[in-house]
Amino acid sequence: MTEARRHHDPEMKGFASDNYAGVHPEVFEALALANGGHQPPYGADVYTQRVQEVFQRHFGPEASAWPVFNGTGANVVGLRAMLAPWEAVVCAQSAHINTDEGGAPEQSAGIKLRTVPTPDGKLTPELIDREAWGFGDEHRAQPKVVSISESTELGTLYTPDEIAEIAAHCRHLGMLLHLDGSRLSNAAAALDVPLRALTTDAGVDVLSFGGTKSGLMFGEAVVVLNPAAARGMAYLRKSSMQLASKMRFVSVQFEALLAGDLWLRNARNANAMAARLAAAVRGIPGVSVTRAVEANAVFAVLPGDAADRVRKRFPFYTWDETTGEVRWMTAFDTTEADVDAFAAAVAEEMAQA
Amino acid sequence: MTEARRHHDPEMKGFASDNYAGVHPEVFEALALANGGHQPPYGADVYTQRVQEVFQRHFGPEASAWPVFNGTGANVVGLRAMLAPWEAVVCAQSAHINTDEGGAPEQSAGIKLRTVPTPDGKLTPELIDREAWGFGDEHRAQPKVVSISESTELGTLYTPDEIAEIAAHCRHLGMLLHLDGSRLSNAAAALDVPLRALTTDAGVDVLSFGGTKSGLMFGEAVVVLNPAAARGMAYLRKSSMQLASKMRFVSVQFEALLAGDLWLRNARNANAMAARLAAAVRGIPGVSVTRAVEANAVFAVLPGDAADRVRKRFPFYTWDETTGEVRWMTAFDTTEADVDAFAAAVAEEMAQA
Amino acid sequence: MTEARRHHDPEMKGFASDNYAGVHPEVFEALALANGGHQPPYGADVYTQRVQEVFQRHFGPEASAWPVFNGTGANVVGLRAMLAPWEAVVCAQSAHINTDEGGAPEQSAGIKLRTVPTPDGKLTPELIDREAWGFGDEHRAQPKVVSISESTELGTLYTPDEIAEIAAHCRHLGMLLHLDGSRLSNAAAALDVPLRALTTDAGVDVLSFGGTKSGLMFGEAVVVLNPAAARGMAYLRKSSMQLASKMRFVSVQFEALLAGDLWLRNARNANAMAARLAAAVRGIPGVSVTRAVEANAVFAVLPGDAADRVRKRFPFYTWDETTGEVRWMTAFDTTEADVDAFAAAVAEEMAQA
Amino acid sequence: MTEARRHHDPEMKGFASDNYAGVHPEVFEALALANGGHQPPYGADVYTQRVQEVFQRHFGPEASAWPVFNGTGANVVGLRAMLAPWEAVVCAQSAHINTDEGGAPEQSAGIKLRTVPTPDGKLTPELIDREAWGFGDEHRAQPKVVSISESTELGTLYTPDEIAEIAAHCRHLGMLLHLDGSRLSNAAAALDVPLRALTTDAGVDVLSFGGTKSGLMFGEAVVVLNPAAARGMAYLRKSSMQLASKMRFVSVQFEALLAGDLWLRNARNANAMAARLAAAVRGIPGVSVTRAVEANAVFAVLPGDAADRVRKRFPFYTWDETTGEVRWMTAFDTTEADVDAFAAAVAEEMAQA
Repeated sequence: MTEARRHHDPEMKGFASDNYAGVHPEVFEALALANGGHQPPYGADVYTQRVQEVFQRHFGPEASAWPVFNGTGANVVGLRAMLAPWEAVVCAQSAHINTDEGGAPEQSAGIKLRTVPTPDGKLTPELIDREAWGFGDEHRAQPKVVSISESTELGTLYTPDEIAEIAAHCRHLGMLLHLDGSRLSNAAAALDVPLRALTTDAGVDVLSFGGTKSGLMFGEAVVVLNPAAARGMAYLRKSSMQLASKMRFVSVQFEALLAGDLWLRNARNANAMAARLAAAVRGIPGVSVTRAVEANAVFAVLPGDAADRVRKRFPFYTWDETTGEVRWMTAFDTTEADVDAFAAAVAEEMAQA
Repeated sequence: MTEARRHHDPEMKGFASDNYAGVHPEVFEALALANGGHQPPYGADVYTQRVQEVFQRHFGPEASAWPVFNGTGANVVGLRAMLAPWEAVVCAQSAHINTDEGGAPEQSAGIKLRTVPTPDGKLTPELIDREAWGFGDEHRAQPKVVSISESTELGTLYTPDEIAEIAAHCRHLGMLLHLDGSRLSNAAAALDVPLRALTTDAGVDVLSFGGTKSGLMFGEAVVVLNPAAARGMAYLRKSSMQLASKMRFVSVQFEALLAGDLWLRNARNANAMAARLAAAVRGIPGVSVTRAVEANAVFAVLPGDAADRVRKRFPFYTWDETTGEVRWMTAFDTTEADVDAFAAAVAEEMAQA
Repeated sequence: MTEARRHHDPEMKGFASDNYAGVHPEVFEALALANGGHQPPYGADVYTQRVQEVFQRHFGPEASAWPVFNGTGANVVGLRAMLAPWEAVVCAQSAHINTDEGGAPEQSAGIKLRTVPTPDGKLTPELIDREAWGFGDEHRAQPKVVSISESTELGTLYTPDEIAEIAAHCRHLGMLLHLDGSRLSNAAAALDVPLRALTTDAGVDVLSFGGTKSGLMFGEAVVVLNPAAARGMAYLRKSSMQLASKMRFVSVQFEALLAGDLWLRNARNANAMAARLAAAVRGIPGVSVTRAVEANAVFAVLPGDAADRVRKRFPFYTWDETTGEVRWMTAFDTTEADVDAFAAAVAEEMAQA
Repeated sequence: MTEARRHHDPEMKGFASDNYAGVHPEVFEALALANGGHQPPYGADVYTQRVQEVFQRHFGPEASAWPVFNGTGANVVGLRAMLAPWEAVVCAQSAHINTDEGGAPEQSAGIKLRTVPTPDGKLTPELIDREAWGFGDEHRAQPKVVSISESTELGTLYTPDEIAEIAAHCRHLGMLLHLDGSRLSNAAAALDVPLRALTTDAGVDVLSFGGTKSGLMFGEAVVVLNPAAARGMAYLRKSSMQLASKMRFVSVQFEALLAGDLWLRNARNANAMAARLAAAVRGIPGVSVTRAVEANAVFAVLPGDAADRVRKRFPFYTWDETTGEVRWMTAFDTTEADVDAFAAAVAEEMAQA
C-alpha cells in the first residue's frame, strides 16, 4: 500500500481554469491497462504505434502525431520544425505563445514572434499583413509561419471558413499555418464539426492538439498535417526536452480520448456549462458578460470587492487588472450543480455590494 | 468504460533498460489518490507543497524540489540555473548530458560542455583540471559547473568521499557541483548510505533526482541543495518547457517513492538482480563481464551472432559497436525468475555458437 | 602599390541613408596614426585604454566603453548584459531591434521583445505599462529592460526630461533603461545639449553609442553608464562575436570622433541639411513632409511615379509601402549643393507628373 | 586635422600573435581608394560585387564570398548555414571554435561540438569516426559537419591529399566539410599550392577565409564552395551580427589582398620568419622546439624564469601552463632583424639562467 496520502477534497471544484481538473475516469482506466511488463521507451512502444491510426482517423491519412509533455512544448516543437533559424512567426498579441509561455519560444528556441493587436484574439488576412512583409530582406526576420489559437485565448472561435481563408492567405504569401489547439476539442464541439474541419480540411499545416485540458493527466501532441511543412520532428522533440521516456502512458491516454467520443463528450460538457454559467450570471444585476461565450470561457466584469469575496469561495483569475475583467472557465468535470452553486455565490456576494 | 485497449503482454520483461518498466503499483495507487476535484495547477497544489517536506527529510532543510517531466529537462533546467550565459560545464565524455540528450543543453539552452575522456565514467580532480582553467579569459567559455552522474552511465559508483573530494575541488576553483542522479537511488542502495550522503553531505549544489527509472510513470525533480547556487528556477522551469500543468500528479508520485522506503526497495531489487545476472553469465563460457557491476547495469562481451539470437528473445542494446560490448539493465520489477530465464537464454544461444 | 582599384564615383552622394557615406577625413587620418608596429589585440592596446577617458569625459567617470563592430552587435551585447535568460525587453514596435536586426536579439541571444505600437516611435510611461506587468509570474517572461532609441527610427527626439521620466518609471518598476543611440549625436546636436544630458544625467543604464553613422568606417560602443546594470560584458562581447581582433583601429576612430567636437560638427551638418531639405521640398507642390524633422531624417509623401523617377537619379527608400511614404536621410558629408541638387530633381520630376 | 593622437611606438614588434600586427600599407591604400562619396551599405556596394570575381579566381566559379567582421563570426555563420538545429560538428579538441571563441558556437548559435583529442591538432577519418556515429538516433545530436583548421592551432598542416581524404570520408558518411582557414594563406604558401588545392579541389564545402591575420585591418570571409551545403547565408550573417554596414571597406581590403599576390607575399614572409626563428632558437642551449614548424608558429620549451625575462622585452603567450610550452608567432611584417633581435634576447636571458 502506498505511503502517499490524499491531501485534498476530491469534491471541490472551481472555475479558475480547465487545468484545475484532474483525470477523467476513462483516461485513468486506460493508464492502468498500459501498465505492467516492459515496453520500449521513447515512442517505440505499441501504444504509440497504435495511436497513430486513431489520430489519422480524425486528421486524415497524412497526419502524424508526436506526443509531448505539455502545451508549451507542443507549440515550441511544432514551430521549430516549421522554421529555419532566420524565420519568424506572426501571431496575435494575445496568443498563448506570446503571453503565457514564459518566453519559451524565444529563450529556448530562438523564435522571433511578430505580434499583432486584435480586438478579439483572432487574426485575419488583413491583420496578418501588418507583419507579413519584407520577404527577401535580410534585415527582417523572415515571416514564415502564422500561428492562430482555436478556441482563442479570449474564448472566441474561428469558423472553418475563417481558418481556410487564413490558410489560403498563408499559401499566397509562401507561409505556413500553425494552430495552437489546446482547446480545439471545445471549438469543434461548439461549432459541431469534426476536428479535421478546423485543421486538415481548412489547410492547417501543423497542430498542437490539447490533451491536458480535455481530461488527460498530462500530454499534448504535435500533429503534423502537412508532412512537407515540418522538418526534424523526432530530433527536435528530443532536443526540446519533450520526449517522454515511458511514452506508452501518454499515448494510451490519447487512445482513451480519441478512439471513441470522449473528447467530444468532455468538450460538450465544458461548453454547455459555460453557456449555463453565462446565462445565470447575466441575470445578476451588476455583473456583465464582456465577450461572446463561444466555447468554455466566460469573461465578465463585476465590482472588485464582490469579486474578491466570491474568490474566497471559488478561486478564479482576474484577466485584466486595469478593467477588473475576470475569467471563469468550465471543465470536463463541471456539473450543473457546480455552476448553480457558483452562480448563487456570485449573486449572494453581489447582493452584499 | 474506456475505449482504450491493452495492446501488450503485461508479463513480458527484458533487460534493455530500466525505463522499459512500467509504474510500480504503489505509485499507481498514489496517482488515484491525487485524482478528483480541482487543484491549482503549475505547482500551487497541495501535493507539490507537501512533497517539499518529503524531499527535505532526505536532503536537508535547505533543499527545494522542483518537479519536472524528464531527465533531460531536469539536467537542462538545473544547469541553466547554475550558469550565466558565458559559463561552461565540465563533464565526462560519457555523461548522459553529452551523449544522449540530443544536444538539448547546447541547442535549447546554449550551454557549452567541456568533455573529458575517462576510463570508467568517473571524473576526478585531476581529470576536471584538464578543462577547468582559463578563468577570467574572455576567449574561454568560463568553467563554472562540474557535472557528474551517480551511478555513472557505465554502471560505476562514486563513494561519498569521492564526491566530497570533487565538491571541495569545485569550491577551491570557484565552481559548483551538479549531480545527474537519474539512478541515484541505485547508488545509495548499493553503497548502503542515505541519499544525502551522496549529495547534500558531500557538497553537491544541485541535483537531478530520478523518478522515472525508479518506478514512476513520469517525473524527475531538480533538487536545489545550495540555494545560492541556482537562480531563476521557477522561470527557467517554465521557459524550458518543464512546468507541468497538473503537477499534483508528478508530486504525489514522489511522495509515494520517498515518504517511505519504496525508493530503496526498488533500487535494492534492481541492484540485486544485476548482481544475480552477472554471477549467472560469468559462468557461461564465452561471455565475459567487462565492467564492475556496482549498481543495476551489467556490461558484457559475447559473440555477435549469439547476442543477436538472444536479442530476438529479449531486447537489449549494443553499447559499443566496435567491440560488440552489450549492456543489460535490471529494473524495480525484475524478478529472479526473469534473470534466470534470461541467463538460460544466453547459455542456450552460446551453446549454439 | 595596391592591386585594388577605385570602382566608384567619390563625388556621388544620395539621401538613402547615413550609412551610404564613407569615412570622415579626420577619422581616416586617425586610422593611419594607429597603424604600424605591434599592439596587443582584443582591447589590450593603448588606444582602447586611452579612449576610456575620452568616453568618460562625455558620459561621466562611471562610464566604461566597450567597442564593438556594428549597431546590432552593440544592442545585443548591451541587452544581454542587462538581462537574465528569463527576462524581457519592452520597446516600441518601430524599434530597430525589433524591425531591422534580422531577429538577432531572439535568434542569437534568446531575448524576448515585448513591443508597443506608438504614434511617433517614442515610448512613454503609459505605453511602457502596457507590457511592463506580470512581475513574479513564471508564465510571463519577466519585463526587465526598457529600450528606447534617440533619435528614434521615425526621426523624432526625446527631450532630456522625457528620458528622465522614463528612467524614473523604470526604477519604480525595478527595471533598467537601455538607449539605442546609433544617432545619439544627431539628437544631442539638435537639442543643443551634451551627450550626457540624454544619457547619464537622465538615468540611462546602458547605451549603444553610434559611430558608423557619424563618420566612422566601422565601430559602435556599448557604454555602460550604471556599472550595476550590466554583467559579463567582456565575456558576452566575445561570445556575441563582437570582439575585434585589432581593436586599436576601432578605438582610435572613437578618439577622433569624441576627443574634440567632430561628433558635433558631423551631427550638426546632417541635421542642418535635413532642415534645408525639408524646407526646400515643402515648397514643391504635391510633396508633403509627413513627420516632424527633428534630426537628420525627412519623411515625405509624393506621387509614386515621381518618386520612382527621382530614385533613378538619387537612391532612397520607401518607408511604408502602403502609403508610399519615403525617407530621406542626410549625413555628415551632405552639402548644401547636394541638397539643392536633390530638391531640384524632386521639383523637376514633380513637374513631370 | 584629427584630434586623435599616436599613442604607440610604430617600430615595436613582438612574437605574441599575428594579430598584434597592424595593416599592410597596400591594404591601407586600398581603404583610401574606397572612401569618398556614397555607396549602398550591407554589401550592395560595387566593391563587394567586384570582389566576388577575385574570390572566384582563387576558389572557382561556384564560390561565393560573404565578408564578415571576424574569425569567430565567420566560423559561426558558416557552420550555422551548414547545420539544422539538431545537428552537430565534429572537430579536434584543440580547434579554435572549441577553445578560443568564448563558447560563441554554443551560446550564440546553439551548435553542439563533438571534440576529439588529437596528437597534433589534425583530424583523420579514424579520429572522426570516434564521434561520427549514431545517425538516425534522436538521442544523439546528429553529426553533420566536420570542421578542420588549416593551418592548425598547433602550427601543423594538412596536405591537399589529407584534406581530400577527409572530404571523401565526410561524403561517405553524408556529412559536410568546413575549414577554418584563418591562416589558410600560410598553409598554401608553406605547401606551395594554390588556395583552391586545399579547399575547392580537395572537397571542402564551406571555408572561413582569414583576412585579419594576413594584414587586413579587419575582415574575414565565409566562402561557400559548395552552394548546396549552405542555407540562408544572407539571413544568418545578419542575425549573427556580422553584416557590415559600410561593407565596401571590408571588400576592398580583400581585393587588395587577393587581386594580386599580396596574400602570398605576406604568408611567405611570416612562414620564412618562423623558420628563421626556429633555426635560431634551436641553437640555444636549454631551448627546445616542441612541434613541427610548418607555417608561422614556433612552439618551444624553455625555463620559466628565462621565458619571463624574455617576455618583459617581447610579449608572447604560454601555450600550456602545465609544461611551460610557449608559442611564438610571426606576421606579415616580421623582419629578419626582428627575428634576430628576439633570438638574441632569448639567448641572453638563457645565458642568465
